[in-house]
Amino acid sequence: MKKEEIDLTLPDSEKIYVTAPDSDVRVGMRKLSLQNGESMILYDTTGAYTDPDIDTSDGLPEIKKGWIEEREKSADGFRTQLWYAKHGIITTEMRYAATRENQGATGDNAITAEQVRADIAAGHAVLPSNRRHPECEPMIIGSRYLVKINANIGNSALGSDTDEEVQKALWAVKWGADTVMDLSTGKNIHATREAILRATPVPIGTVPLYQALEKAGGKIENLTWELFYDTLVEQCEQGVDYFTIHAGLLREHVDLARRRTTGIVSRGGSIMAKWMSLNDSENFAYTHFEEICSLMKRYDVAFSLGDGLRPGSLADANDAAQFGELDTLGRLQHIALDNDVQTIIEGPGHVPMHMIKENMTRQIEQCHGAPFYTLGPLVSDIGAGYDHITSAIGGAMIAWMGTAMLCYVTTKEHLSLPDRDDVREGVVTFKLAAHAADIAKGHPAAILRDNAMSRARYDFRWRDQFNLSLDPEKARRYHSEMIKSAGHDNEFCAMCGPDFCAMRITKSIDK
Amino acid sequence: MKKEEIDLTLPDSEKIYVTAPDSDVRVGMRKLSLQNGESMILYDTTGAYTDPDIDTSDGLPEIKKGWIEEREKSADGFRTQLWYAKHGIITTEMRYAATRENQGATGDNAITAEQVRADIAAGHAVLPSNRRHPECEPMIIGSRYLVKINANIGNSALGSDTDEEVQKALWAVKWGADTVMDLSTGKNIHATREAILRATPVPIGTVPLYQALEKAGGKIENLTWELFYDTLVEQCEQGVDYFTIHAGLLREHVDLARRRTTGIVSRGGSIMAKWMSLNDSENFAYTHFEEICSLMKRYDVAFSLGDGLRPGSLADANDAAQFGELDTLGRLQHIALDNDVQTIIEGPGHVPMHMIKENMTRQIEQCHGAPFYTLGPLVSDIGAGYDHITSAIGGAMIAWMGTAMLCYVTTKEHLSLPDRDDVREGVVTFKLAAHAADIAKGHPAAILRDNAMSRARYDFRWRDQFNLSLDPEKARRYHSEMIKSAGHDNEFCAMCGPDFCAMRITKSIDK
Repeated sequence: MKKEEIDLTLPDSEKIYVTAPDSDVRVGMRKLSLQNGESMILYDTTGAYTDPDIDTSDGLPEIKKGWIEEREKSADGFRTQLWYAKHGIITTEMRYAATRENQGATGDNAITAEQVRADIAAGHAVLPSNRRHPECEPMIIGSRYLVKINANIGNSALGSDTDEEVQKALWAVKWGADTVMDLSTGKNIHATREAILRATPVPIGTVPLYQALEKAGGKIENLTWELFYDTLVEQCEQGVDYFTIHAGLLREHVDLARRRTTGIVSRGGSIMAKWMSLNDSENFAYTHFEEICSLMKRYDVAFSLGDGLRPGSLADANDAAQFGELDTLGRLQHIALDNDVQTIIEGPGHVPMHMIKENMTRQIEQCHGAPFYTLGPLVSDIGAGYDHITSAIGGAMIAWMGTAMLCYVTTKEHLSLPDRDDVREGVVTFKLAAHAADIAKGHPAAILRDNAMSRARYDFRWRDQFNLSLDPEKARRYHSEMIKSAGHDNEFCAMCGPDFCAMRITKSIDK
Repeated sequence: MKKEEIDLTLPDSEKIYVTAPDSDVRVGMRKLSLQNGESMILYDTTGAYTDPDIDTSDGLPEIKKGWIEEREKSADGFRTQLWYAKHGIITTEMRYAATRENQGATGDNAITAEQVRADIAAGHAVLPSNRRHPECEPMIIGSRYLVKINANIGNSALGSDTDEEVQKALWAVKWGADTVMDLSTGKNIHATREAILRATPVPIGTVPLYQALEKAGGKIENLTWELFYDTLVEQCEQGVDYFTIHAGLLREHVDLARRRTTGIVSRGGSIMAKWMSLNDSENFAYTHFEEICSLMKRYDVAFSLGDGLRPGSLADANDAAQFGELDTLGRLQHIALDNDVQTIIEGPGHVPMHMIKENMTRQIEQCHGAPFYTLGPLVSDIGAGYDHITSAIGGAMIAWMGTAMLCYVTTKEHLSLPDRDDVREGVVTFKLAAHAADIAKGHPAAILRDNAMSRARYDFRWRDQFNLSLDPEKARRYHSEMIKSAGHDNEFCAMCGPDFCAMRITKSIDK
C-alpha cells in the first residue's frame, strides 16, 4: 500500500511522539496548532502515514516486531496480554495504550499502564494484539477508556475489489476508525485481507465463518468444523486481531427466534443456525470452544463473541432469544478468561430508547464486565437512508452507559454497501457519538477539545473551528461557499450577518 | 404559491379524510398502499397540496375560515383556544388536532378531543391558531402527543430571496415539518412572511424582534418598545401563529452570563441584552408583558418564550444564567395562562448527555408542564458539518423525557445557511429523532410503522421498505444503484448477496 495513494494528514497538524512514563516507548499523536498560538494533542489512528520522516512506500513499519520477538525468545515463550496482565506484568503494549488514552494530559486523572493491566487481567478491557500483525499500534478497549469505533469494510459477491477495500480501510482510519473489520464474502478474501492487514495500523477483525462458507462453495451443508478450524488457523497466521465467532448461539435459542418479526439478521448467526438444523447438531464453535481458545491464545487473537440473535427490529428487541444467547456468551467469556484469551461481547442491533439500558445492565451482569461492542443500537426501524443517525442516537446512549466500542452504521445500511463518502460520514458520525459518550462519562481529556472549539467560536477563529471539528475539510467547504457568495468574512457568523451576530453583540456589551 | 412549482406527494400515497368523532370535521391524512394489499394511515403535514381534487393554483383553501367567522360573530366574540378550553368548550380545532394524532387508530389508547381540551386548559398543550392564518391545519403541541418538529427558514443580509424561502417552507412541509419558523433578517421581511403564510398549511412562528431591529435600521440604540409593539401588531395581523419573545431575560441574568465561554448565542437574547445595557433599563418585553398578552389574545397568537441565555457551549450548560432565565419564563407562563394566551417554553442549546435530564426536570417544575421546545440539545461542540447529528442525539433523548417539539438543526449549523438539500436532511433527521421518542414514550400509533417496515424487510418487499422510510426517494436511489451495478434484485439483501443473506437463510430453516 503506497502512502501516496491516499493522504491521511489533516490540516495544521503534525505527528509528535509522547514517551510513555517509566519507559522509552514512543507513542504517536497528532499535534494541532491553533491560530492563537496554542496547540492540542489529539488521539491519532493514522500511524506512520502521517509521519513525513517515515517512508511507507514499502509498507508500514512493524512497530511491535521487537517486543514480540523478545517475548517469543523468552523462557516462557509467547503469551497473551491477558496472561501477562494476570501475572502482574505490564507489557510495552499496555504502556503504549495507556499513554495514548491521555492525549498528552498528565495529572491525577491520567490513565496509567497499571490500570490497563488490571482491567485486562479482570477481563474488563481488551488489547487486540495478534503477534502476526506487528504493524498494529496498541490500543485499549474497555468501558473506562475512550469509546472506540469500528468501521466495517469488505467486498460482497455483488461488488468491490481488493484495492478499493484497502483504500476504504485507510480512509476509515484517516477519519478516526479505531479498528476495522474486513467482512469480505466475495472473491479474493485471503488476498484482500492480507493487503488490509499489511497496510493498516489499527487492529483488524473478521468473521471467519464467512470465509469458511466460501471454502464450502457457499453451501452450508458442506460446512464442517474442520473447514472452520482451518480458516481460523489461516487467519491467525495472517495477523487478524479479533474474530467474531458466534459460539453462544445454541439450538434452543433458534427455537426461541422462530416467533420473531425479522428472524435472524446476523449473517453468521443465520449460517450457524442453518448448519445446526441441517446437521441436527449443536453449534460447533460452542462444542469446540476450548480448542478454539487453545489456538487463539497462541497468537493472542481476541474473541469478539458474536450476537447471532441480535434483534433486527424493535419488535424483537430484548427477547428471550437475544438474552438467552447473551447469557451463554457470559459463560463462554469466563472460559476464555480462564484460557488467557481476551474477549469482547457483541451487542445489538435494533432497540427502542427505553429498552437500551436493560441491554447494558444485563451484559455487565452476565458477562462479568467484559467490553461490550454494539452495532448502534438503531432506535427506530424506519430510518432507511438515514440509519447512521438512528444508530448514532442509540450508540451514544449505550456508550454513555458503558459500552466500550461502537460498530459504525452507514447511511446505506439495509440498502446497499457503503462507498468511500459513506465510510467517511459513518466514521465521523460514530466518532461524534463516541465522543459525546466520553464527555458524559467524564473522560478528562474529552471535554478539552469542545472547550477549545467554543473559545475559537467566541474569538471568531474560523480556521480553528474547522480544524477542531472531526471533518475540517467539510466544515471549511460549507463555510467558504457562504462567504464566497456573500463576499464577507471575519468577525461575525455567516448564518446571521453582522447586525444579527449574537456573539458580536455580546462582546460589545462586555466592552 | 402555485402547486405546480413543488411536488409534495410521496409515492403510492393518497390523501384521505378521516372524520373526527361526534362531528363532521374532516381531517386530512396520508394513506400509503403496501405491496401486500395492506395500507397505513399516516400523519400528513402537506395540506391541500396533496389532494388532486383541490386547485391550489390560487392559494391554499382557508379551512378554518368558517370556524373563525362563526366565533367572531358570537356573543362572546373571538376568544383563544385557551379561553374555550378553560370554559370546558371543545372547539373544532381541538377535534381536528385530536383526530390527527391518532393516524386512523381507534380504541382505548386513542387521543380524544377532551384530552386535548384539558391539556390546553392546564397550559400543558398549545394549539397554535392565529385567526388571521385560516390556511393552517390545527395541530397540537404537548408532551402527551406526537413529538413535533420545527424547521427554521429565512433569509439573512447575506443571501436568499422570497421565492426561495417559500419553496424551502413547502419543501420542509413535504418532509414532515410540523411548524415552520421564518427567521428572516434581511430585505423584504414583510413580503417574505406574507408569501410563506399564505402558502403553508402548518403554523408559522417568528422572532418579531428581528424585524423590529430592521425597522430601527439595524441599530440597537434606535430600538424602542413602540417599534417592537408595532411589529407585533403587524405580524399578528398577517397571521403568524407563534412569537418567540425573549421576555424572561433580565438584567440580572446578563451579569450571570459574563463569565461564560461563549456568552450569549441567541440572536434575540443578545439584542435584548445590549438594549438593556444601552438604555440602563429592564427588558421591555418583560416590563410590558401584560400588554403583549393583551394583544396576542385578540388573535390567539401563542408565546414561544425564548431562551435568550441558552448555552452555546457545553461549558455553559445548566449555568445560573440559563436557569435564572428559565425560572423567569415559568413566572411569565403563569401570567400568560391567566391572560388566556397559550405558551410554549424554549430550551437549549448545547448540553452534554449527562446534563440533559436536569433541563427537562427543571422546566416541568418551573414552567408548570408547559410544552418544552428545544434546539437539539447538541451533545458536543465539535460537530461542525455534522451538527444535525449531535443535535438529533440530544433531541431524541430530551423528547423521550417529555419535550414536546424539537427545532431542527441542519448540517450547516455554525457554518452557513441551509440550502434545500440541507432542509430536507435536517427535517428527516429530526422526524426520526421525534419518532424514536414517540416510540420510547409509548405513543400507540408510532410503533406501527416500524413493525410494518420490519415485516416488509422480512418479506423482501423492497418498494414498501422505501415507502415506509421517511425519505422514499433516497432509500430507493441507494438500493437501485447497487442493484443496477450488480444486475440482481429480489429475495436477498443487496448488502450481502444471495449466499450471505441472513433472512433468506433464516427462512430456509423455517421451511
